[in-house]
Amino acid sequence: MGMNENVSKPLDRLSNELAGDMAAVNALIRERMASRHAPRIPEVTAHLVEAGGKRLRPMLVLAAARLCGYQGDSHVLLAAAVEFIHTATLLHDDVVDESQQRRGRPTANLLWDNKSSVLVGDYLFARSFQLMADTGSMQVMRILANASATIAEGEVLQLTAAQDIATTEDTYIQIVRGKTAALFSAATEAGAVISGVEAPVQQALFDYGDALGIAFQIVDDLLDYGGSTTTIGKNVGDDFRERKLTLPVIKAIAAADDEERAFWTRTIGKGQQDEGDLDTALAILKHRGALDAARADAIAWAERAKAALDLAPAHPLRDILSDLADYVVSRLS
Amino acid sequence: MGMNENVSKPLDRLSNELAGDMAAVNALIRERMASRHAPRIPEVTAHLVEAGGKRLRPMLVLAAARLCGYQGDSHVLLAAAVEFIHTATLLHDDVVDESQQRRGRPTANLLWDNKSSVLVGDYLFARSFQLMADTGSMQVMRILANASATIAEGEVLQLTAAQDIATTEDTYIQIVRGKTAALFSAATEAGAVISGVEAPVQQALFDYGDALGIAFQIVDDLLDYGGSTTTIGKNVGDDFRERKLTLPVIKAIAAADDEERAFWTRTIGKGQQDEGDLDTALAILKHRGALDAARADAIAWAERAKAALDLAPAHPLRDILSDLADYVVSRLS
Repeated sequence: MGMNENVSKPLDRLSNELAGDMAAVNALIRERMASRHAPRIPEVTAHLVEAGGKRLRPMLVLAAARLCGYQGDSHVLLAAAVEFIHTATLLHDDVVDESQQRRGRPTANLLWDNKSSVLVGDYLFARSFQLMADTGSMQVMRILANASATIAEGEVLQLTAAQDIATTEDTYIQIVRGKTAALFSAATEAGAVISGVEAPVQQALFDYGDALGIAFQIVDDLLDYGGSTTTIGKNVGDDFRERKLTLPVIKAIAAADDEERAFWTRTIGKGQQDEGDLDTALAILKHRGALDAARADAIAWAERAKAALDLAPAHPLRDILSDLADYVVSRLS
Repeated sequence: MGMNENVSKPLDRLSNELAGDMAAVNALIRERMASRHAPRIPEVTAHLVEAGGKRLRPMLVLAAARLCGYQGDSHVLLAAAVEFIHTATLLHDDVVDESQQRRGRPTANLLWDNKSSVLVGDYLFARSFQLMADTGSMQVMRILANASATIAEGEVLQLTAAQDIATTEDTYIQIVRGKTAALFSAATEAGAVISGVEAPVQQALFDYGDALGIAFQIVDDLLDYGGSTTTIGKNVGDDFRERKLTLPVIKAIAAADDEERAFWTRTIGKGQQDEGDLDTALAILKHRGALDAARADAIAWAERAKAALDLAPAHPLRDILSDLADYVVSRLS
C-alpha cells in the first residue's frame, strides 16, 4: 500500500490529541448509563462499554468539532450520544445475528437474555436523545435522528438482501451506509454543525465520514476473506458461512460463468455448503479479481474521504483524520 | 360504579371531536412508515398499525393541544411521533414476551421473525424523533426522550421484578409508569407545551396523563383476574400463569398468612402451578379484599386525573377527557 511510518497509528494519535475531551466523554457515559430504578441496565451496558471498543465514533465527533474551532462543551454530550447509539445498535445486532461473541467476550444476549439486550438497547437509544436535547441544537437532533433511521433501514435491508445472489453493488453500498457509514458521517457532520462553520464545511465533514465509513466496511468485508482471526476478531469465512452478500462476492457473481454461478447459488443462495467450499470460493474470488477490485474500491473511498477534507480548516487534527483514511485501508496490506 | 349515560363512550366522542386532526395523523403515519429502501418495514408496520388500535395516545396529544387553544400544525407531527413510539414498544414487547397474539392477530415476530420486529421497532423509534425534530420544539423533544427512557427502564424493571414476590406497590407503580403512564403523560404534556400555555397548565396536563395511565393499567391488571376474553383481548389468568406481580397479587401477598404466603411463593415465585391454582388465587384475592382494594386505587387515580383538569381551560374536550377517566374505571363494573 506504500504507507509510510507516520501514518501507522493515527488512532493512537487521535486518542492522544483528544485525551482530555475523551476523559470527559467516558465520565459522562458512565454517569448516563446508570438507572435509578433498574440495576440490570448498567450491568448490561458496562459489560459492553467497558469491554473497550476503539471509541472511534465519539472521537470523530470531537475531532470534527475541534478542527472546526469549537470552544464549548456540547461536543462531549454529542460524542456520548453517538457512542450510546452505537452501543444500542450493537446490543440489537447481537440479538438479530444470534451472536455469541463481541470484542472477544460473550455477548449480552448470551450472558443475560435477548430481552435484556432489546430493552437496554432501547434505553440507551432514549438516553442518546436526552443527551442531544441537552446540546440545545435542533439541527444536531435532526442529523442523528436521520442517521438512526438510516441505520435501522440498512439493517432491515441486509436482512432481506441476505442470501439473495441478485444483490447489486448499489444495494450493498446502501446496506453499508446503514451498518457503518451513517453514524460516521453523522458524527463528523454534527461535530461541524455545533461549531457553527458554514454549510460547505459541514458538508465536507459529512462527506469525509461517509467515505471513511464505506472504506472501513469494505475493508472489514475483505478481511473476512483474507484476514486472520486475531486482526479482525472473527474467523475467516464467517460471512461466507452466514451467506452474506458482501462486495467481493457480489463482484465475483457479476463476473461468474455458468459453473461459478451454480456454485454461488448453491452455497450462498441455498446455503448448501460442503467441506472445501470456502477454499473454492476463495479461489474463484482470486481468479475473478474480485478481491483486488474490492480493494481498489476501498482505496478509492479512502481517497474520497481525504479529498473531502480539503475544504476543512488546516489543523493538526485534519492531518490525523486524513492519515486515518489511509490507515483504514492499510489493514489490507 | 354509578356512571351515567353520557360518559358511556367518551372514546367515541373524542374520535368525533378530533376527526379532522386524526385523518391528518393517519395520513402522516402512512407516509412516514414507508421506507424507500426496505419494503419489509412498511409490511411489518402496516400489519400492526392497520390492525387498528384505539389510537388513544395520539388523540391525547391532539386533545391536550386543542383544549389549550393550539392553532398550528405541529400537534399532528407530535401525535404521529407518539403513535410511532407506542408501535415500536409493542413490536419490542412482543419479542420480549414471546407473544403470539396482539389485537386479535398473530404478532409480527410470529409472522416474520424477531429480527424484523427488533429492527422495524428501531426504525419507527428513529422516525418518531425525526417527526419531533420537525416540530422545532426542543422542549417537546426532551419530554418524549425522557418518556422513552422511562418506558425502557420500566420494562427492564418488570423483567427483573417478575416472579419476585417481594415486589412492592412502589415498584409496581414505577413499572406501570414505564409500561403505560409515561407515554400518556408525555402525550398530554407535549400537547400543552406546543400550545405555549403557562407551566402550571403544562404540569396539570402531565398530571392528568400520568394518573389516567396508572388507572388504565391497574384496571387492565384487575381485568386479568375477572374480565372476559372478549373485553380485554386476553384470557383471565394470563398474568397469573406468567407469574406477573400485579397490584391485586401484591396486596394479597402483603396481607397473606403463612399458608397463603406458601401458595404465592410456590405458584408465582417458583412457578409450580397445578390445576385449580388459579381458582385458589382468585379465592384468596377476594377473601383478602385485594381486588376491591386495587379497584379503589384505580378509582382514586381516575379522581386524581379529573382533579388535575381543574387547572386546564374550560373546553368541550376537557369534559370529554374528564369523562374518559371515569370510563377507564367503568370497565370494571
